[in-house]
Amino acid sequence: MVKSGKDNCLMQVTDPSVREKYLVEINSLFKKLFPLCRSITGQGVRDTLELLKGVEAFTRNDISSGTDCYDWRIPQEWNIREAYIADEAGNRIIDFQQNNLHVVSYSAAIDKQLSFEDLEPHLHTLPDYPQAIPYRTSYYHETWGFCLTYEQYLKMDRKGTYRVRIDSKYFDGKLDYGEALLKGKSDKEFLIHTYCCHPSLANDNLSGMVLWILLLRELKKRDLRHNYRFVIVPESIGSIAYLSQNEAAMQKIAGALILTTVAGHGAFGYKQTYLGNHLIDQIVTQTFREAGQELIRYPFDVSGSDEKHYSCPYFRIPAGTITKNKYYEYREYHTSMDNLDFVSAEALLQSLNWHLAVIDNLERMRTYESLHPYSQPMLGKRGLYPKVSGHLKQQAGGGVEKDVARRVDALNWVLFYGDGKTPLSEIAERSGFSMQELDKAVQTLLEKNLLRAVGGDK
Amino acid sequence: MVKSGKDNCLMQVTDPSVREKYLVEINSLFKKLFPLCRSITGQGVRDTLELLKGVEAFTRNDISSGTDCYDWRIPQEWNIREAYIADEAGNRIIDFQQNNLHVVSYSAAIDKQLSFEDLEPHLHTLPDYPQAIPYRTSYYHETWGFCLTYEQYLKMDRKGTYRVRIDSKYFDGKLDYGEALLKGKSDKEFLIHTYCCHPSLANDNLSGMVLWILLLRELKKRDLRHNYRFVIVPESIGSIAYLSQNEAAMQKIAGALILTTVAGHGAFGYKQTYLGNHLIDQIVTQTFREAGQELIRYPFDVSGSDEKHYSCPYFRIPAGTITKNKYYEYREYHTSMDNLDFVSAEALLQSLNWHLAVIDNLERMRTYESLHPYSQPMLGKRGLYPKVSGHLKQQAGGGVEKDVARRVDALNWVLFYGDGKTPLSEIAERSGFSMQELDKAVQTLLEKNLLRAVGGDK
Amino acid sequence: MVKSGKDNCLMQVTDPSVREKYLVEINSLFKKLFPLCRSITGQGVRDTLELLKGVEAFTRNDISSGTDCYDWRIPQEWNIREAYIADEAGNRIIDFQQNNLHVVSYSAAIDKQLSFEDLEPHLHTLPDYPQAIPYRTSYYHETWGFCLTYEQYLKMDRKGTYRVRIDSKYFDGKLDYGEALLKGKSDKEFLIHTYCCHPSLANDNLSGMVLWILLLRELKKRDLRHNYRFVIVPESIGSIAYLSQNEAAMQKIAGALILTTVAGHGAFGYKQTYLGNHLIDQIVTQTFREAGQELIRYPFDVSGSDEKHYSCPYFRIPAGTITKNKYYEYREYHTSMDNLDFVSAEALLQSLNWHLAVIDNLERMRTYESLHPYSQPMLGKRGLYPKVSGHLKQQAGGGVEKDVARRVDALNWVLFYGDGKTPLSEIAERSGFSMQELDKAVQTLLEKNLLRAVGGDK
Repeated sequence: MVKSGKDNCLMQVTDPSVREKYLVEINSLFKKLFPLCRSITGQGVRDTLELLKGVEAFTRNDISSGTDCYDWRIPQEWNIREAYIADEAGNRIIDFQQNNLHVVSYSAAIDKQLSFEDLEPHLHTLPDYPQAIPYRTSYYHETWGFCLTYEQYLKMDRKGTYRVRIDSKYFDGKLDYGEALLKGKSDKEFLIHTYCCHPSLANDNLSGMVLWILLLRELKKRDLRHNYRFVIVPESIGSIAYLSQNEAAMQKIAGALILTTVAGHGAFGYKQTYLGNHLIDQIVTQTFREAGQELIRYPFDVSGSDEKHYSCPYFRIPAGTITKNKYYEYREYHTSMDNLDFVSAEALLQSLNWHLAVIDNLERMRTYESLHPYSQPMLGKRGLYPKVSGHLKQQAGGGVEKDVARRVDALNWVLFYGDGKTPLSEIAERSGFSMQELDKAVQTLLEKNLLRAVGGDK
Repeated sequence: MVKSGKDNCLMQVTDPSVREKYLVEINSLFKKLFPLCRSITGQGVRDTLELLKGVEAFTRNDISSGTDCYDWRIPQEWNIREAYIADEAGNRIIDFQQNNLHVVSYSAAIDKQLSFEDLEPHLHTLPDYPQAIPYRTSYYHETWGFCLTYEQYLKMDRKGTYRVRIDSKYFDGKLDYGEALLKGKSDKEFLIHTYCCHPSLANDNLSGMVLWILLLRELKKRDLRHNYRFVIVPESIGSIAYLSQNEAAMQKIAGALILTTVAGHGAFGYKQTYLGNHLIDQIVTQTFREAGQELIRYPFDVSGSDEKHYSCPYFRIPAGTITKNKYYEYREYHTSMDNLDFVSAEALLQSLNWHLAVIDNLERMRTYESLHPYSQPMLGKRGLYPKVSGHLKQQAGGGVEKDVARRVDALNWVLFYGDGKTPLSEIAERSGFSMQELDKAVQTLLEKNLLRAVGGDK
Repeated sequence: MVKSGKDNCLMQVTDPSVREKYLVEINSLFKKLFPLCRSITGQGVRDTLELLKGVEAFTRNDISSGTDCYDWRIPQEWNIREAYIADEAGNRIIDFQQNNLHVVSYSAAIDKQLSFEDLEPHLHTLPDYPQAIPYRTSYYHETWGFCLTYEQYLKMDRKGTYRVRIDSKYFDGKLDYGEALLKGKSDKEFLIHTYCCHPSLANDNLSGMVLWILLLRELKKRDLRHNYRFVIVPESIGSIAYLSQNEAAMQKIAGALILTTVAGHGAFGYKQTYLGNHLIDQIVTQTFREAGQELIRYPFDVSGSDEKHYSCPYFRIPAGTITKNKYYEYREYHTSMDNLDFVSAEALLQSLNWHLAVIDNLERMRTYESLHPYSQPMLGKRGLYPKVSGHLKQQAGGGVEKDVARRVDALNWVLFYGDGKTPLSEIAERSGFSMQELDKAVQTLLEKNLLRAVGGDK
């Protein structure tokens, strides 16, 4: 947990009654959004975006099927009405109505009697995890298939004949996505990204979408220093399309946070940006360190989510990912067991608080210039130094206010690095002070006209 | 201890009879200087400087009260004749004559009968260290106060009335300080700084002042490569005033050593410069490492002594501090227990030797250019290589002089890095040779016309 | 051993029958070359070079005695016919015919009766290793001497008279050496160096010479990307002479491998270049790490072989040395015990394979530019991505080819760093993939027109 909830986090989310309100809201969103059959295009995505807009407004956009986006092309829409495998007695032994993972996403239509032998190459199971239905897709190659538990598979009659029906269709439509641009005072813009294409999978990525909309609502209430671009798209094709449609704007992005797998019961983790030591990495590390919260560190890997596109040679946007049960790292990942039992509203609320704490520290990123750079300025004549001194640390118990030494030290650290180029995160690392404490010192020094902000901020 | 005293240190200070002479002199200085009531201005400082001038000559200067120095102003002089608290029977229960720490330094005059209740807010004690009088000051806010042991405080009558008298006065005078500039051949200038404002406190900073004057005397005897600026000023206001009076000269300072708390019975320590890896840091580290002497490492902290002013954005002078019981780190610090029992002449002599060893290595800092950079030059024809070779390390016991392999290696390391830019301290670190060994090799190579010095040295 | 011999190494050397052929050849070379009395000049060197030319052609060159080479001068030739110490009875108790190490290399002629007392200063022994004859030289100072075991020395009659005869002569001749330049397509040239001056010493450096000629033969068969300059010279004076004769060409050398002490029974080691993190260091480290082979790491030292000349300030050629029982580090070094029992053909074959693996990785060094840098390109439409996906790592057992996830990852890592400046060795380090795997990915991407090579290669 964030140590000093009051300051690092949302006021409302550490207040017990507000927490309760949030938990109810998150659970309600989980329940409504989980069953929708999302894919990279189609009605499931539209229904999802509409539900999220009910929480907080953002702009919905779309791109037509067939539009070229760099090396890719927007696919046709895929909508599905029903899909099942029925045995000879007509019993639907596998049914898309039961779980939308049962159909390989983007499967072509079929309606045939097939022997088990002919059917088998189209069946996907997990022999090592016999109770779980795997999640499979086939977006860019026309085929069809069913996913089922290995236990279901074992019960099928090797000599039997099955009716196999998928009532789906492809048609020229569009790819839907959402975005919102929150304006700040600085010339820096950060990207807050999530993806909305996965069907009934809870941690990946129902959790990311819910975090995204709550974060958007929260930041909208604030007077922001930086600009924040919120983007929600289907994974891969969505971010590629977004890059191609917003090339100039995206070249200016200073850094990104990818929201995915944030509500599991496990440990917090952080996947580094491709640079490993970017501002985003420093801030995330610093934020968790200040609060004494452990963090599993995952080095950058090209295999992952949309950072692989955002960080590509042409854009090179450094993108970090804070996770709670990171994708790939838990057994339930991309199976029917990544369901509502795997996640919790409490975990998501924690993730919300951490992301807000990180953004708070990102907001504190600015460089300053001391207006008295020739020596330490005289704090005493400005009422910032105790009247009687000699050993401030020792005096704590001797009548002087308790943390005066610490407060004076924070002022002096900020003044010492008031060279117009040292970012606050670096002062935090060198001094051992939290960015929040340093930012308080900054405010005091600005008020007393001892410091001025430099750089792109207006 | 310095391993090879003969070469690293003062000849006279490792010679037993000379050591004895030094110990006597140091003890005598300790006894004369300890009782003086120093403050940032006033007679105590003048008496101190005069006593030190008796050891070795330097220039005394002063700055008038009221002079503006950057954000600060030189305060009035404060002189004090007597101060006490007397009980109803007229017994002086707290008396400045007993210990000059009993009065808050720079206290305003007072002469009144006060109830204990009215007196109490002006009493400073250390409940956690009941036998010690704390050291307190109030330079820039007019007030008065007494410091006493917690035991004394407990004995006072809560119902009593006390005569409280401080016979002090402020008047337009001056701030006194001393300086000396030793000229060398190079264009590099280093600062050797100490402060002279503390009253009867032995390690902080009687020890620093005594080391400063002995170091000055020692370096004056030498033919120096670099320039050394010796400065002795009251802490903070003195260094700020000095910076403002010598701005152009101080901008050219290559590095500084701050002399403070150097004669305790504890371990040697080193507070790094704000850069952490500056030449000064490398040389100090290398000097202690070569001698196998442990050193507690203190990272830079804005809280400390005058380095906080010297290293400020405008000047950024890297300043290191070698200590023996570093300020802040011992219980007796800034109390009456930091007295002559806490320090020893022997400890101060060790500190003198270490500072001289560091300066010896600083003196060795120069870069060289090989005059035969195309390959290793032929050492044999210059009598620098054994006549019969094959395996120099193995030959040690076979008739060849014992350390020939080591001597030849040192020559070759210096030649190898004879690129006009690698400092000797870096060659020491890469090769494992001491700077002293490498400097011997340098001398040989210069004599044999295999090397030439480059850079600012004339 | 190299893990995947087939790909990392010579096809022929991992094939059992070819291995056998090689072992026979190496043993035969060992036996023929070992007894020759090599020195820095003379018939022994010429015979050695001729024997090596029988394995693979290279150019023989020579430089006349008296030629000035930087700070050095090519010495006269030294040829020796016989040398012995005989006792009063005429028994040759020390005889050059028995072991050519018995005479200090480059000894002047002598033919005299000497008392033991007069003889003794000319006798070299190893009291700590009493069965071994030391190897001693006196190239640049005219003297004479005998090397003998300490046991032989103890048996000599302290009162006796000895006939001492060395039938040697100096005359104006030449210093012989060999070279070969293999042309590649890139503008990079690497140096493969060994030295041929040592007499009957097996690991130092009969082994280096045999490795050198086999490596030359092997690389000649190949279509090389880079240029390789093979040089075989007497140690020190030979490399100095070579540098002075080829100054312009040598200034362009990108890096060097020094071949020495490569056939002992001990562990593999690597002496770093003077930079420590040069391309050569990265490639060697990477090659051994990929194969899971431990490697003793030796930091750069000016004391060593010819890298001390090549890396001198004017040339600064980074030179690394892969060893199997590194010189200096084994007791038998530079004694008669570094004989054919100390080395093995098997060890030399391993060293050959490792050097080839390193050169294979050096050949892979090139930078590439993604032709689709805006996002990951679409692998699926080029047949490089599985038709059904969802969790490639999990799908291994589910019908998809086993290592598909790994293959796709390698493609994506190469594309991600397709920025025209990241060398393959760095991608290997970041991704955990071997350079060989990445190079396979490169080939695929070049074929599919997703990548192009940049830089100096034509």
